[in-house]
Amino acid sequence: MAKILISDGMANDAILKLKKLQYEVIEKHYTQKELLSGVLNEYDAIIVRSATKLNEKVLSTVESGKGIRFIGRAGVGVDNIDIKEATKKNIVVCNTPQSSTQSVVELTIGHLISSTRHIVTGDRQLRKNIWAKKELRGTELSGKNLGLVGFGRIAQGVSKVASALGMNIHCYDPYLNKNIADQHNCIVHADVDSLFYNCTHISIHCNLNENTYHLVNQERIKMMPVEGHDGSKCGRHIVNCARGGIIDETAACNALSNGELASLGLDVYENEPLSKSRLTGLDTFHGTPHIGASTIEAQDRIGEEMIALLNDFFNEKKPHSILN
Amino acid sequence: MAKILISDGMANDAILKLKKLQYEVIEKHYTQKELLSGVLNEYDAIIVRSATKLNEKVLSTVESGKGIRFIGRAGVGVDNIDIKEATKKNIVVCNTPQSSTQSVVELTIGHLISSTRHIVTGDRQLRKNIWAKKELRGTELSGKNLGLVGFGRIAQGVSKVASALGMNIHCYDPYLNKNIADQHNCIVHADVDSLFYNCTHISIHCNLNENTYHLVNQERIKMMPVEGHDGSKCGRHIVNCARGGIIDETAACNALSNGELASLGLDVYENEPLSKSRLTGLDTFHGTPHIGASTIEAQDRIGEEMIALLNDFFNEKKPHSILN
Repeated sequence: MAKILISDGMANDAILKLKKLQYEVIEKHYTQKELLSGVLNEYDAIIVRSATKLNEKVLSTVESGKGIRFIGRAGVGVDNIDIKEATKKNIVVCNTPQSSTQSVVELTIGHLISSTRHIVTGDRQLRKNIWAKKELRGTELSGKNLGLVGFGRIAQGVSKVASALGMNIHCYDPYLNKNIADQHNCIVHADVDSLFYNCTHISIHCNLNENTYHLVNQERIKMMPVEGHDGSKCGRHIVNCARGGIIDETAACNALSNGELASLGLDVYENEPLSKSRLTGLDTFHGTPHIGASTIEAQDRIGEEMIALLNDFFNEKKPHSILN
Repeated sequence: MAKILISDGMANDAILKLKKLQYEVIEKHYTQKELLSGVLNEYDAIIVRSATKLNEKVLSTVESGKGIRFIGRAGVGVDNIDIKEATKKNIVVCNTPQSSTQSVVELTIGHLISSTRHIVTGDRQLRKNIWAKKELRGTELSGKNLGLVGFGRIAQGVSKVASALGMNIHCYDPYLNKNIADQHNCIVHADVDSLFYNCTHISIHCNLNENTYHLVNQERIKMMPVEGHDGSKCGRHIVNCARGGIIDETAACNALSNGELASLGLDVYENEPLSKSRLTGLDTFHGTPHIGASTIEAQDRIGEEMIALLNDFFNEKKPHSILN
């Protein structure tokens, strides 16, 4: 049977099921050097999350008729996979686009509320025996304009909850499905600047690519209004649970430092793991370590979805999420 | 004109408006000793939040035909006011029940997500340059049973957002309006034990009184299922943004320590300000310093509502929220 390399881990139940289905499953994380030395020729398929970088050089080591024929991304973003090179090598690339949606939606809402209500700072002060009640006056989300950059599955989920919180939903998405935006009662903007000019709160839900790299920069932060749609002086708030690199972290740090940006909540960073960043010295920043899909439920669903993809591929059916 | 003491602060705009309306406004926080010495006889009305304790002894100092005739609670909970004694002294007590609802709803949802997704711990570790991605696997709220203790305005608001998050809403409220529960598609429990037996997630939305003191105790924590309605091993989670004292903090600390309770998110404490508590040494606890109503919007609305109450009272109309 097919030999499958699980490079960045997968839910235990899914690994057990794959073994029961007679796949040969090897759980091992190779270094970039090992990958470059051609280990991918020992396997029929590889399952990665985001830690394993399958760039052009690594994929160019795959020999015709020998190595991996299938790359499964246990998650959504495929910026760690050179899809062009994979296609050249006749390697099918699939992700699991549906499985982590709800987990990322919930984390995004959590960051939005933590941002505006100082939950993280409040806790940090309590642990120092400081009762910072007076210093931690926040603002409500209700009545404010939430700008969603991208309006795919996750943004739509965020829209549903944010609407229940009383926010007005705005979005910009060059690939927008207008019907879906209408269903969500979402105000559609023709360009990303217009979104920033109209929203005190911005949440990122697009892919990282050359068009979105540093999309949030000093200039766009300054475009955002400081006064809410309801007239409240809420300031500017940005959340990113999508991909690092979309926000220019230096510009964001400067804006937090000089008060132009009231808060920044991040789950993703330009360089991960984040270390020795100016961000973590700032009180108006709070962050989580890329845990958007890190829930029991999402990982179980990702495992199930990946088994279905592998079964289809190795039984010569078309997997449902081929990206090339 | 009437002389009004603002004892625990109020929104600036509201104070300016009161002065424009020709009230004599004094902003001053008296110590308990000063209150006992009879200073309330120098005023016609007092506006408090929760810091000023108008207990039986303090109110007994008010002389007939002389001192305060009106107590305004800028907020909801009146456990710092002895209403019986106020009634005896012919003092009208009013609160501002509507103004802070949305702010408390948002903070409650924030605590629920912080609890299940380790937002606070993730940030604390990041600040120590620790990338705790693997340790911080969380669980989704979607698909779980949320038990609301009390089903008044705030709980109803929480219900709306939690439903949008995909939770199943349960409640117990001895004063329940059945129509409202039906509108919210809320499963009603006949007693509080039944609520705990059915819900992995509990949020407190009742008053503090002799029936609710230590309502959340060791026994009830153990009643809660550890497995979600959707079969996920999510553990038990409790949030309290209502009033301290409803949760037995010693029992909760023990349950967090031995893992019986997966997380505890608190905005209120039995003794405030919280200091030197076992809670703040525990990773699965996170807390905020009683900031449920601490938003610009809620404080502005509270100010507006208080002006309306004072105007009605001093113009011999009936204020809309008399509690005695």
